[in-house]
Amino acid sequence: MSEHGLLVSAPGKVILHGEHAVVHGKAALAVALGLRTFLRLRPGGGERLRIHLPGVGVRREWDVAELSALRGRLTADFDESKSPGVEQLDVLKEFAGIAADASAPDSLAILAFLYMCLAISAKYGDVPSVDIAVWSELPTGAGLGSSAAYAVCLAAALLHACRAISCPLKDGEATARFYFESSRSQGWPEEEMSLINSWAFQGERVIHGNPSGVDNAVGTWGGALRYQSGKITSLKRVPTLRILLTNTKVPRSTKVLVAGVKEKILKFPAIMNPVLDSIDAISQECQSVLEAMPTNPSPEYYPVLEELFDINQHHLNVIGVGHPSLDRLCRVTASHGLHSKLTGAGGGGCGITLLPPDATPLAVEAAKRDLCACGFECWETDIGAPGVTLHSSSALNAEVLHALSES
Amino acid sequence: MSEHGLLVSAPGKVILHGEHAVVHGKAALAVALGLRTFLRLRPGGGERLRIHLPGVGVRREWDVAELSALRGRLTADFDESKSPGVEQLDVLKEFAGIAADASAPDSLAILAFLYMCLAISAKYGDVPSVDIAVWSELPTGAGLGSSAAYAVCLAAALLHACRAISCPLKDGEATARFYFESSRSQGWPEEEMSLINSWAFQGERVIHGNPSGVDNAVGTWGGALRYQSGKITSLKRVPTLRILLTNTKVPRSTKVLVAGVKEKILKFPAIMNPVLDSIDAISQECQSVLEAMPTNPSPEYYPVLEELFDINQHHLNVIGVGHPSLDRLCRVTASHGLHSKLTGAGGGGCGITLLPPDATPLAVEAAKRDLCACGFECWETDIGAPGVTLHSSSALNAEVLHALSES
Repeated sequence: MSEHGLLVSAPGKVILHGEHAVVHGKAALAVALGLRTFLRLRPGGGERLRIHLPGVGVRREWDVAELSALRGRLTADFDESKSPGVEQLDVLKEFAGIAADASAPDSLAILAFLYMCLAISAKYGDVPSVDIAVWSELPTGAGLGSSAAYAVCLAAALLHACRAISCPLKDGEATARFYFESSRSQGWPEEEMSLINSWAFQGERVIHGNPSGVDNAVGTWGGALRYQSGKITSLKRVPTLRILLTNTKVPRSTKVLVAGVKEKILKFPAIMNPVLDSIDAISQECQSVLEAMPTNPSPEYYPVLEELFDINQHHLNVIGVGHPSLDRLCRVTASHGLHSKLTGAGGGGCGITLLPPDATPLAVEAAKRDLCACGFECWETDIGAPGVTLHSSSALNAEVLHALSES
Repeated sequence: MSEHGLLVSAPGKVILHGEHAVVHGKAALAVALGLRTFLRLRPGGGERLRIHLPGVGVRREWDVAELSALRGRLTADFDESKSPGVEQLDVLKEFAGIAADASAPDSLAILAFLYMCLAISAKYGDVPSVDIAVWSELPTGAGLGSSAAYAVCLAAALLHACRAISCPLKDGEATARFYFESSRSQGWPEEEMSLINSWAFQGERVIHGNPSGVDNAVGTWGGALRYQSGKITSLKRVPTLRILLTNTKVPRSTKVLVAGVKEKILKFPAIMNPVLDSIDAISQECQSVLEAMPTNPSPEYYPVLEELFDINQHHLNVIGVGHPSLDRLCRVTASHGLHSKLTGAGGGGCGITLLPPDATPLAVEAAKRDLCACGFECWETDIGAPGVTLHSSSALNAEVLHALSES
C-alpha cells in the first residue's frame, strides 16, 4: 500500500433486458453503469480500524485488538465459498450495536464491512489498521446494484490490505502519476478478479441474504453479463453506450411484483409463456447486436437496440410490472425521439433511455429537463462501463475526492 | 311481399381479437356491431328498378326490360358459388357508366347492386320491378364491414323479391304489428340464411375482389365468429356487450400495415412468432369467456375481457400496427377507468372500448366527450348484435325511417 493509500471504484448495474423473465428460467442481460462507488483506503493510526460512509452518515471505529478477539470468538471457518453463518452475523450485530432485524442501509453496510474485514483477515492475515471511506454516485434501494458496488470496493481494498491480491501499481512508480484508464483491464490477473468477486458476493449475502450474484459480477468485471438459470457469462465485447438513467422515485416492492408476474402466468399460461419466450429472444438478439458492435459504434446499430427497448417495454407492461410513471417516462423521451424501457423490478423505480450518437445535445438536455419536471431524478451516464478499477487521486474528479476527503 | 314492402337490416362488424395474427394462420374473433345498415324494398312503379343510397348520394333507375336484355348478354352462368367474372363486371360497368378502375364507394355499390340483381334474378326468376333504398349507421372505409352489411341486406331483399327465400312473416298478419325482436332467430331457416350469406359474399367479391368472407358471415349470422385459416365457426352463445366504438379518423393503408407486420416477423422471427402465439391464445381465452357468459352478464366477467384488451393492445403495438392516435384513445379511456384496444388494421382507424355494467353513465359520457375533444368520432353501441333481421316500420326508429323515406 502506498503512503497515499488506495483509491478503488466499482460500477453499479442496470438490467438491459430479461428482468422478471429471468425468474422463470429465461436469460437476462446486466450491464455495468457509468455511476460508480468509490473507496479510499489509507493506513490507519493508533491500531484502529475506521469506516466512514458520508452518503449514509456512518462513521465508526474499533480497536484492532478488540476485532482480533472478536474474530477468535467466531468459531466457524471464514471462507469465500461458504454463506456467512447466522450465528456469526448475530455476534457481529451485537458487537456493533445493530438490532437483530435491522434492514436500514447504514446498519447493513456496517455489518457487511465487519464481516468482510474479519473473514478476509482471518483467511489472509491480521486485522488491518486502516481508514476506509466509501462514497457512491448510486442511489440506494433503486435496483442499481449499489450494495454490490460497495461490496466489490470493500473486497478489493481489504484483500489488498491483507496482501491477498497483488498491487497492479508498479513499485517505485509515483502514485500520483499512476492510474488505470477506463479499459477492460483493471490490472488484476483473472484469478484475483475472481477472488474479489467471491468476497464481494459474501458481502452481498450479508446484505441481501440470497442474492443472484449478478450484481457483484457486474461490479467486478464491468461490461455486460448474461445470466440464465444461475449461470453467469461475460459478453465477449461490449461497446460503451450513452444512456439517461431516470429514477421515477415511485417506491415498489420487488417481492410483490415478482409474485404478481407469477400469478399472471398461472392465470393465463398460454398467453404469458410466449411473452417470456419473446423476452428471452430479445435478450439473445440484444446480445448479438452488442457483440457485433465496435467499441465506438456508429449510429446504424442503434435503431435495432431502440426497437428492442420498445418491444420489451410493451412486454413488461403485459406481464404486469409497468406503472403510469414509467409510461410517462417513455412518452416524455419519445417526444424527443428517444426510446426507453423500465429497468429492474418495474412498478415505478428506474427507466433507461438510449442516447444514440445522433441525439443532439439540445434534444438530450430538453429530455432531461422534461423528465425532471415530472419530479424524476435523471443522470446522463453510460452502460458497458469498466468493472473494479484502481485510480490515482489525479484521475478522480474533484467531487469524488471531496466526498472521500470528508473522512 | 306486403304492400308496405320489406324492411331488412344487417350489422357491421369489429374484430375483437386476432387482427393481423389471422394473416399468419392464427384465430381471430369477429363480432357483430350494434351499428347497422337498413334496406327498404317496395314494389316499383312502371316496370322500373330503382336504387337510392342517400348516404353516398346515389339515385339510379333502369328499365326492367333493359336489364333483362343486359342479363341475356352476360353469357356466363350466374351462381353464388362462382366468383363474379371480370368480363361480366366490365359489361356492367360500361352499362352503368362506371369507369373500369373505379374504386369509389358509390360506384362499387352500384356495381354490386347490378351484379346481385341480375345474378339472383337469373337464377330464381324475373328482374324484379322494385324500389330499394339503403341507408347505414356505419361509416365506410373504416374496417367496420359496411360493404358486407350492404351486401347482406341486398341479398336478403333480392332473394325475397325473387321468392327464393320464404317470408318469415305469417300470411294474413297485419304488417304493422309484425316484427322480429333483436334475437338470434331472424326468422329464416338455416339453409336460407346460408343462401343469403352466399349471395352477400358475391356482393363482397364485386366490391373487394378477394374478401375473407368473415364480414358477410357476421352480417348474416350476427353474434360472434371465429375465423382461422379460412374456416369460419359461429360461437355457441354470445352475450351482448356494451362498447364505445371510436374512429380516430387517421387514414391508413391496410396493405402497408400487413406488409410491415410481415417484415417485422422476418426481421425478428424468434421475438415476433411468440407474440402471434400469445395473440392466438388471447382469442381462445376470449372465446371461452364469451361462451361462459350468460346473455346479460354480471360485472364479474368483465375484468378478464379488459385484461385481454390491454394485453392485445400492447401486442399490436409490438407488431407495429399501433399509432399515437390509438395510444391517446387508450389513455383517454383509461383515465375514466375504461379499457380499449385498436380494432382492425390499426395504424389509426378505429378502437373499441369495453363498457362494463358498472361503468357509470357519467364516466361514459365524460369519456365520449374527451374522445370527441381529440377530434375522434365516437358511438356508444354494442357487440354481439343480431344478424340479418326483418323489421316492421314500427320497430325502427324515426331517424332510420326518415333516412329511408327520402327516396
